[in-house]
Amino acid sequence: MKDNIPKSGFITDRNLILGLDLYQLTMGAAYYQYNLENSIEEKDDIAVFEYFVRRFPKNRNYLIFAGLEQLIFYLQKARFSEEIITYLRNKEIFQKIDSSFFDDYLPNFKFKIDVFSIKEGTFFFPNEPIIRVQGPIFHAQLVETFLLNVINFQIIIASKASRIKNISQNKTLLEFGTRRAHSPLAGIYAARASYIAGFDGTSNVIADFELGIRSVGTMAHSYVQKFEQEIESFKTYYDIYKENTVLLIDTYNIEKAAKKISIIGKDIKAVRIDSGDLINNSKKVRQILDKNGNNDILIVASSDLNEYKIKEILDNNAPIDAFGIGTELVTSKDDPTLSGVYKLIEYNKIPKIKISEEKIIIPGQKQVYRTYNNGMFIKDKISLKDEIPPENSTPLLIPIMKKGKLLYKIPKLSEVRDYCISNIEKLPKKYKKLNKIKFKEVEISDTLRLLLNSLIKEKKNE
Amino acid sequence: MKDNIPKSGFITDRNLILGLDLYQLTMGAAYYQYNLENSIEEKDDIAVFEYFVRRFPKNRNYLIFAGLEQLIFYLQKARFSEEIITYLRNKEIFQKIDSSFFDDYLPNFKFKIDVFSIKEGTFFFPNEPIIRVQGPIFHAQLVETFLLNVINFQIIIASKASRIKNISQNKTLLEFGTRRAHSPLAGIYAARASYIAGFDGTSNVIADFELGIRSVGTMAHSYVQKFEQEIESFKTYYDIYKENTVLLIDTYNIEKAAKKISIIGKDIKAVRIDSGDLINNSKKVRQILDKNGNNDILIVASSDLNEYKIKEILDNNAPIDAFGIGTELVTSKDDPTLSGVYKLIEYNKIPKIKISEEKIIIPGQKQVYRTYNNGMFIKDKISLKDEIPPENSTPLLIPIMKKGKLLYKIPKLSEVRDYCISNIEKLPKKYKKLNKIKFKEVEISDTLRLLLNSLIKEKKNE
Repeated sequence: MKDNIPKSGFITDRNLILGLDLYQLTMGAAYYQYNLENSIEEKDDIAVFEYFVRRFPKNRNYLIFAGLEQLIFYLQKARFSEEIITYLRNKEIFQKIDSSFFDDYLPNFKFKIDVFSIKEGTFFFPNEPIIRVQGPIFHAQLVETFLLNVINFQIIIASKASRIKNISQNKTLLEFGTRRAHSPLAGIYAARASYIAGFDGTSNVIADFELGIRSVGTMAHSYVQKFEQEIESFKTYYDIYKENTVLLIDTYNIEKAAKKISIIGKDIKAVRIDSGDLINNSKKVRQILDKNGNNDILIVASSDLNEYKIKEILDNNAPIDAFGIGTELVTSKDDPTLSGVYKLIEYNKIPKIKISEEKIIIPGQKQVYRTYNNGMFIKDKISLKDEIPPENSTPLLIPIMKKGKLLYKIPKLSEVRDYCISNIEKLPKKYKKLNKIKFKEVEISDTLRLLLNSLIKEKKNE
Repeated sequence: MKDNIPKSGFITDRNLILGLDLYQLTMGAAYYQYNLENSIEEKDDIAVFEYFVRRFPKNRNYLIFAGLEQLIFYLQKARFSEEIITYLRNKEIFQKIDSSFFDDYLPNFKFKIDVFSIKEGTFFFPNEPIIRVQGPIFHAQLVETFLLNVINFQIIIASKASRIKNISQNKTLLEFGTRRAHSPLAGIYAARASYIAGFDGTSNVIADFELGIRSVGTMAHSYVQKFEQEIESFKTYYDIYKENTVLLIDTYNIEKAAKKISIIGKDIKAVRIDSGDLINNSKKVRQILDKNGNNDILIVASSDLNEYKIKEILDNNAPIDAFGIGTELVTSKDDPTLSGVYKLIEYNKIPKIKISEEKIIIPGQKQVYRTYNNGMFIKDKISLKDEIPPENSTPLLIPIMKKGKLLYKIPKLSEVRDYCISNIEKLPKKYKKLNKIKFKEVEISDTLRLLLNSLIKEKKNE
């Protein structure tokens, strides 16, 4: 595994300052103008936002945090270039904003915020603050869109991948979904997030090149089709790739193809089945291979796999050694969205709420304290950050950035994966069921509850 | 609307040659090695692939083609840089490939393919060939992953957006989904695809900056929360944005907030409701606004909207003027994947098939002929490209590139949108129902059927 410093920079060298919703800029310009007219300095205009997930996606019993590294790179690289500033200055909506905003403020803008976050690869639950951002409100507000975009997606994929990992009995898991991911960048993020959750490789070559995730590949049906005889396609491929050869055997007739394998070579790595009844087909193929003395040749299966189908396959003792999982994983097909939100919870030291129907915010700067017993997870408690922590508990939110400066040593991606796997081992079995369970392992502190209720009362009477 | 030539290049200036599955490269290297050893020139190694969709996503009755422009840019820009070639050369799997592959072939590689495609914004159906790519097999094969990625996603979003447009009775439709899109790039693609299908604007600023789609924005709850009194937040915003002001009125109490509006200014553009019962809340708010003489102030609604909820809202005569649609649109939440595939259908003039269970390919170079009557769509016929077309029919596939050279004049994005809207007007009402209908408006020519059956017979007996 290579170091995780990106080399080609598809993922990280972009200046994505404009990857946001226009209202971040209209609000930001309004804050600027307000401060200018009221002689308020940025240091007296401090907001605190928290990111949390409102509710579980379908059937999920825990979530896995991922995407922090991309957020950090964004915060370090985002700038308003001259070209961007010219574009904004000419927008009709900004005509009433003082020209110093475009002449001085935007050209010198860098994110000067404090960031707290839980570590990538940590399991967590809805309503828990996962990221906390503090700084001048212009800065802290501007982060919202990119943070939500990049964190929501990687969490949903890591969490889906973890479900697959849980039921896969140490089989090799390969992410094959780029063609169905929502954009090339989504393909790379999906490879990253599923690797964190314990996948072993990806088909995506940028994920290998830039992130050091081992890329793997077999062959497409087109390779087999191109040659007049199937056996010719097998031979030419094996001539080159020898012990790395994986042959696709379902283009015409799986059993006939399996029988051809022993003619090709005993050290072929694997055959792949990509259609039909994977349970019966894998059993038939295994039998043919074994009968011909090809006991060491592995079977890779793919074809719209998900955690339910893999469970069924394994429950039926199908002799499959590796699964290639694409579409259902990289889109989190059964529930492709995460209700992650980024909300103002304090302004100039005053706790803030909102009480829109079904969309309440818990006010104040918070911390999550996690308690274990004999190395196994017991419960979390959400408290105000300065409350006395529960006995023997560990705080999940740790400092990442201070005034825009990185305090945190970004771990290698392979370290994040190792951490995630060991973290999930601490999660009791009931959380790993594929269907929804009922539990109540997240408490809210009494102080927090009192604060919330008093603010609701105040705001309802306003 | 600006010209659609990108300015900052987030979308198009990337060299995405590695945005593919590893097997494209292992197959490609194998083709190279095979040709070298057998003295075959690229001009005698010509493959033809077609892109088609296997089946409809849930409840869809037609699809809209989008993403061609991104595919064209990719084909024009993709190169193997020195850094990339070094990386590939060092990969263990490629050790047996002749060094001329890395020394000469890859450094000089440019896509030299012919491309045929239907026009962006055109409706189409499963099994119809939508893109045809012809060229040396190394070139034509390599295209697969990127093509599938970028085309699958934009089709699914354009098709979802079109459903929303169909039931929205000329209300203003705004794409607000970047925060829930699967990566920043997915956010931009989603803005593009929904604009093509008839949306009026987007919250995504890169989509405005680079593609010229009008960006729009209101305010977040954080803006209201920041100020001690809600009214203060409204005043400060209106002071700056005047007739462009859109105020968010559901942070605390919608009715109380609506009553404050008339104090602020009569020329406020709109108020936004983002939670709760949108039907009843909009009616109450409209009443309050009208009573205070604010008849011209519009109501914008958002909050997990989709085509079903909007239909219900409009069926109940809710006085909403504009809808902000995010999550459900940009993930195509009810069905986030498209079964679009890219398959070898001819090699050196010999038609090719595959007969994997439930995953059959129709062989040969094809064309889709569309027939209208009185300007309304009647049916499509899939034929071999050189068959005599049905009377009064129009071929859908047109030439885009010849040996890598662009033949096609890429239309402005606003022109694609106009074309799409007029194209959808030709589609009979039954296709626009929200639930699944049964129809059979796609025929396959007899010649094609005969060819398919004879090849199946041949391959089954092999």
